[in-house]
Amino acid sequence: LNDTSVPIGELGEREVLRRLRARIPQGEGVVVGVGDDAAAVEVGPLALITTDSLVEGVHFKRDWTPARLLGRKALSINLSDIAAMAGVPRHATVSLGLPPDVPWGFVDELYDGLLERSAETGVNLVGGNLSASPVLFIDVTLLGQATRVVRRSGAVSGDQLVVTGTLGAAAQGLKLLAQGARLDSEGELVSTGVWTDSSAVAVTACLRAQLDPRPPLAFARALAERELVHAAIDVSDGLSGDLWQLCEASGVACALEFASVPVDPQVSQLVRAGGGDALSLALHGGEDYQLLLAAAPERVDELKELAAVFNTPLTILGQFREGAPSVFLRVGGRHMPLDRIAHDHFRPTGAGAS
Amino acid sequence: LNDTSVPIGELGEREVLRRLRARIPQGEGVVVGVGDDAAAVEVGPLALITTDSLVEGVHFKRDWTPARLLGRKALSINLSDIAAMAGVPRHATVSLGLPPDVPWGFVDELYDGLLERSAETGVNLVGGNLSASPVLFIDVTLLGQATRVVRRSGAVSGDQLVVTGTLGAAAQGLKLLAQGARLDSEGELVSTGVWTDSSAVAVTACLRAQLDPRPPLAFARALAERELVHAAIDVSDGLSGDLWQLCEASGVACALEFASVPVDPQVSQLVRAGGGDALSLALHGGEDYQLLLAAAPERVDELKELAAVFNTPLTILGQFREGAPSVFLRVGGRHMPLDRIAHDHFRPTGAGAS
Repeated sequence: LNDTSVPIGELGEREVLRRLRARIPQGEGVVVGVGDDAAAVEVGPLALITTDSLVEGVHFKRDWTPARLLGRKALSINLSDIAAMAGVPRHATVSLGLPPDVPWGFVDELYDGLLERSAETGVNLVGGNLSASPVLFIDVTLLGQATRVVRRSGAVSGDQLVVTGTLGAAAQGLKLLAQGARLDSEGELVSTGVWTDSSAVAVTACLRAQLDPRPPLAFARALAERELVHAAIDVSDGLSGDLWQLCEASGVACALEFASVPVDPQVSQLVRAGGGDALSLALHGGEDYQLLLAAAPERVDELKELAAVFNTPLTILGQFREGAPSVFLRVGGRHMPLDRIAHDHFRPTGAGAS
Repeated sequence: LNDTSVPIGELGEREVLRRLRARIPQGEGVVVGVGDDAAAVEVGPLALITTDSLVEGVHFKRDWTPARLLGRKALSINLSDIAAMAGVPRHATVSLGLPPDVPWGFVDELYDGLLERSAETGVNLVGGNLSASPVLFIDVTLLGQATRVVRRSGAVSGDQLVVTGTLGAAAQGLKLLAQGARLDSEGELVSTGVWTDSSAVAVTACLRAQLDPRPPLAFARALAERELVHAAIDVSDGLSGDLWQLCEASGVACALEFASVPVDPQVSQLVRAGGGDALSLALHGGEDYQLLLAAAPERVDELKELAAVFNTPLTILGQFREGAPSVFLRVGGRHMPLDRIAHDHFRPTGAGAS
């Protein structure tokens, strides 16, 4: 039996812990790292804390998701939350629920991804918990540091609605997984599923958006040092749902410019080739892990310049206005109410597994 | 349909979140509480962080465990870790994995327990995550505050081994649950299972030790302000396993006085009535959530006085000595090596479900 295929139940909890701990470096600001009752870390006077889980069968399937990318994503979805507060991510704990028949190699690769993503983003893994579980889950808690936080509740009438990056690729990626498209653990395409090779570039991009999301962290870090935005939220549930949340928290309405929605070009290409509704994926698809920002009109140019420095696309999507919390889609000269079609974890539809 | 029996899948994620958030007060040191992308909290220059989960079918059964007590325990097992670092618990996040058929009343009562235990211990609930999951799990991350941490690695040859409280009751409580004994959500006895009413007091005490553990938090907080101990670990896996860990971290051996092991008197009573091995439960049972401390002999009197102030029983259990990390049991004049029989989450035995 190859060591990587040994079930962790055979290795035993202490041996798994020993192997994982041996891999974790002790970083800056870590006074007590893994292996004690608790970790002791420096986070500055104002600490940010967020927690987010990935549950097998709900957020991922093991045969769709290489373990290394799963580890990366488990951290990235939390990085996105810290970015949306304009904070600097610092320290993470990882709570794993593992069925005893999971092979050691899977856990090892999961940690490849966690450690790699931590190193890329300056985060220290400082502790965690290992538990047997009938279903595999990864719950990451991320501590960040902030001097001044940007909340969801700061948008005011007259602010521009701005979004980073493009939308819809992660949701399209989920569809592609269901159609048999696959990445390997290095993020390289191994199968286009039902798609032809001519779509390989677009398929790869959408799969990567789904399996290895990259929130605009450097831009968010730069935002933290300037007072350029009034409010921020990350786009995790989908543009419509998250914009509704921003409006509710801020007590404002928002008119979204239909023609401005930055539909991911790879999604548009695949939709042209294979059908579907690219705009719907961009509006409601979720898991984009981009930032939705509210900024005063006179600060938008400066915001754009900053985004350009970090190579982060920025789109002005609409405008906040007085009124009961609500979202309108402006098509031509007409305003249509936009429903929140955010994913409900307790009422899954066919569209999203996230 | 009574509101408490409505499955959360019918209420929907947003409504469940709304109800839970409405219950959570905003406490001291909380700059941004629940409802934003991340919480922002004050924790002082040195933050402690620990995370621990309870997974259905692994750490608890829903029909053995009233939801309110489950909520209390989910926090308590983390409080124990902060206590073992001589820290002050401050802020917690709660990540829930919930099957959609769980009734709202269960989640509501779980939060009764979480909020009540938080209030008792001065902890703020500041955030969390709600996810669908095929199996119910509760993952709590607790932030604490420390000025000077007490680690596992500080025990030196000559130190006395000291333990708080009594041992074995939680493990006996688990056996009692398997034998049909039950508490209600208020922690009152509703069934003695196979035991007669004459054992009711002892049965209740052991069930409470299992379902509603009370780490010696006030004593630990007082310890934080004095340099009375060299090392600390909480007894969660069992005395033998955790003492082994302390010895390994500190690079010392330890001789444990057989006659001094503070077997819980209620366990002794039940064992006299119904058979079993009380000492084995006290040595290897686990989930006691007491503190195992290493203290210089000349500080032990002061330590005892401090414990008396907080009504915390304290027992001198043995002595650390030079040598390869190992644990010996001293019976009469003889030394016998003591195996670590800590529970392995990936290799469950009949004895422990924790």
